[in-house]
Amino acid sequence: MSDTFVVVGGDAAGMSAASKAKREDPELDVVVFEKGEWVSYAACGMPYYVKGEVEDLENLVAVTPEEFRDERDVDLRTGHEVVGIDPEGETVTVEGDGETFDQPYDHLLVATGASAIEPPFEGLGLDGVFTIHDMDEADAIENYVTEHSPDSAAIVGGGYVGIEMAEALSARGADVHLYEMLPHVLQPFGDAVAEVVEDHLREQGVELHLDTAVSGFEGAERVERVTLDDESHPADVAIVGVGVEPNTDLAADAGIELGETGAIATDEYSRTNYENIYAAGDCAEARHVVTGEPDHVPLALTANRAGRAIGQTVVGDPEPVGEIAGTAIVKAFDLGAARTGILDEERARDAGFDPVSVTISAPTRAHYYPDGAEITVTLVADRESGRLLGGSVVGREGAKRIDTVATALTAGMTVTELRNADLAYAPPFSPVWDPILTAAKVLEGKVAGE
Amino acid sequence: MSDTFVVVGGDAAGMSAASKAKREDPELDVVVFEKGEWVSYAACGMPYYVKGEVEDLENLVAVTPEEFRDERDVDLRTGHEVVGIDPEGETVTVEGDGETFDQPYDHLLVATGASAIEPPFEGLGLDGVFTIHDMDEADAIENYVTEHSPDSAAIVGGGYVGIEMAEALSARGADVHLYEMLPHVLQPFGDAVAEVVEDHLREQGVELHLDTAVSGFEGAERVERVTLDDESHPADVAIVGVGVEPNTDLAADAGIELGETGAIATDEYSRTNYENIYAAGDCAEARHVVTGEPDHVPLALTANRAGRAIGQTVVGDPEPVGEIAGTAIVKAFDLGAARTGILDEERARDAGFDPVSVTISAPTRAHYYPDGAEITVTLVADRESGRLLGGSVVGREGAKRIDTVATALTAGMTVTELRNADLAYAPPFSPVWDPILTAAKVLEGKVAGE
Repeated sequence: MSDTFVVVGGDAAGMSAASKAKREDPELDVVVFEKGEWVSYAACGMPYYVKGEVEDLENLVAVTPEEFRDERDVDLRTGHEVVGIDPEGETVTVEGDGETFDQPYDHLLVATGASAIEPPFEGLGLDGVFTIHDMDEADAIENYVTEHSPDSAAIVGGGYVGIEMAEALSARGADVHLYEMLPHVLQPFGDAVAEVVEDHLREQGVELHLDTAVSGFEGAERVERVTLDDESHPADVAIVGVGVEPNTDLAADAGIELGETGAIATDEYSRTNYENIYAAGDCAEARHVVTGEPDHVPLALTANRAGRAIGQTVVGDPEPVGEIAGTAIVKAFDLGAARTGILDEERARDAGFDPVSVTISAPTRAHYYPDGAEITVTLVADRESGRLLGGSVVGREGAKRIDTVATALTAGMTVTELRNADLAYAPPFSPVWDPILTAAKVLEGKVAGE
Repeated sequence: MSDTFVVVGGDAAGMSAASKAKREDPELDVVVFEKGEWVSYAACGMPYYVKGEVEDLENLVAVTPEEFRDERDVDLRTGHEVVGIDPEGETVTVEGDGETFDQPYDHLLVATGASAIEPPFEGLGLDGVFTIHDMDEADAIENYVTEHSPDSAAIVGGGYVGIEMAEALSARGADVHLYEMLPHVLQPFGDAVAEVVEDHLREQGVELHLDTAVSGFEGAERVERVTLDDESHPADVAIVGVGVEPNTDLAADAGIELGETGAIATDEYSRTNYENIYAAGDCAEARHVVTGEPDHVPLALTANRAGRAIGQTVVGDPEPVGEIAGTAIVKAFDLGAARTGILDEERARDAGFDPVSVTISAPTRAHYYPDGAEITVTLVADRESGRLLGGSVVGREGAKRIDTVATALTAGMTVTELRNADLAYAPPFSPVWDPILTAAKVLEGKVAGE
């Protein structure tokens, strides 16, 4: 009898693992339980659906349930929730189609994802107040905006979701107010990026309220105002995007260990403390390529990559899931902002480094070539070893240059090695010294104590 | 008495070295002899001057002669040609201002550049037949095109200069015919790039003549026709861009050794066989990061970087010039095409590798996000070690992704390590798996014999 691979959760990590395992071993029974109806969808695309640039929510689905079932031969059960795991008995308990049953497994993947954090705001239940983390929420926001054509919108949280939703709702005609508790938006991107993004958001008509705590929302049935400590502003619609938390209850109840970040602890193959139980995606930790320590950075590529590796491991060809650099990129109206590695100096010191950083601005193309833009690059390195620790990029074009820095981090390069990388130059694409190289050159001097 | 650093040639390598040396040691006497009048100019920008996108030729000058003299305190002598080097006596012989004199040096940099190859074509001396390698030529072409508004243009050579000039002359209203002896344009970029570029050139109205040898030009005083073996086509202007050759006569006459490529042989500090004579830029070899062998790839970044390192070395703080990957990028109308490392399988085998390659096409953005483009990525790796050897990229956006591959080459990464790089994803910038990662994933399978 062939083995059974059970997957809990049908998004990036889960469906990647299921597809890969089945492709590598067609004899394997692969069963996926997804409590909702959507699988394999691009949550990152939801703001562009609300904005109106993606016509159908279905467009965000990479592979449909029918394709998984018919073409990939995966036993996908939507509307089925796993409510218990018995690691000793090697079964999961499932509720679906009005019944409860036990499903045995040989290998189990917990890919339960994350949920939007719901702060203890008053009025969170009013109509028109949304979080945005799943497709049904995206659909509800779009419907609400279409129905009510809000004049004003409150975005709570200046992370990437908040900024993408500010752009989306602005495009839908609302006056957008964005509230951030911290002194800057996009905190993980560092101050150099934040300052450029904040200037641009204001230019685009977004009213920024930094260092500002929201206490809740007011309204009769629908939201009408957002309330701060001592004032309130009109808000015909509100999006709360203050971060996500990993969905770990199912795992924790089964004795699966969580890490210090609060997400599920995993080894290099994404195994939990149980040999045949894996965890991956937004619910799980991954190892950071710079610190070597577990970290929790819930992003799509990490989930896809880990799922694919697990799919290979469960068929007997073990494949490490790889390390993460926390690389992220976000569009903020006409800007691209990106980051990778360790930018925060305190965090670098905690990891045993002595961080030195520089921020430079340079043109994205040769100075004489038309339509270039200014790009701001930050690089951080360890003073003693010269090892590159992290970087950020922000500008109207060229934010994908962060990939050069991310690749250098993956390779463990020093700032001198990066400075010597033979990057591409032609006037329409770069100055002779690419801005990444210019930043490396300046940082190298600073590391050397010049 | 302070040392004297003499530089022969006032473009990228020479002026970078002069500036850096003077900045590091203000006591050093730095003398630059440039036989022409232009210094520190961006030859790569010349096609865009002809095209009309750069208004003044002076815009291509990064630093003016006056700035070098007044702000950087470099003794720059334009209109001065070095006609001899005496390595034993440590002097150079210079002609300028109607006189000939000897200039002693403690350190000498030969940065004599390269010249456009002039094939033995008939009619090369006709008015309207140009090579394009220096500013005076760019100026002459622009003037000729403005004066004669050519209906037809012949470009001989499908390298990057030929392709950039095809775009420029097409923009100026000429019907462009491009002649290439080889079966494909952009030979160093590999067939996968060439085929995409060729389709696009044809779409843009360029008449491509591949596998076609030009024998010369005909006309009364001005060029009227370009002649092939058995036919001829109208040509009101002609650009011959069949490559460059390093200017090595001065060096060779002085007993400075040339390498197998024909350019000046150098060590890791860009020293020649004479301890205190350096060579850099388009006249010199550099070491290839993949093969470890000397190579001759005359490009701007290599020249700038070597010049800067030499400037530091001559003041007593030796700095290796770094290795090259042969990274290049070119705009072909609406396309960007880029390459790095070793793409040619025969060359890879000569260097002791067993090359395996893949070519994939993928979208530059999430499939549902507007305005994306298709990008074609080729990666080459060594079968046994999995080491990445080279790559190419072509598409309407995203050609700078080649920098990720170039960085991986600099780091000596395997294709598996590149596949695990944590590159940036958000729908407006990339699919979840960046096309570079997709190519690495497929190549990894092929290397593993799947």
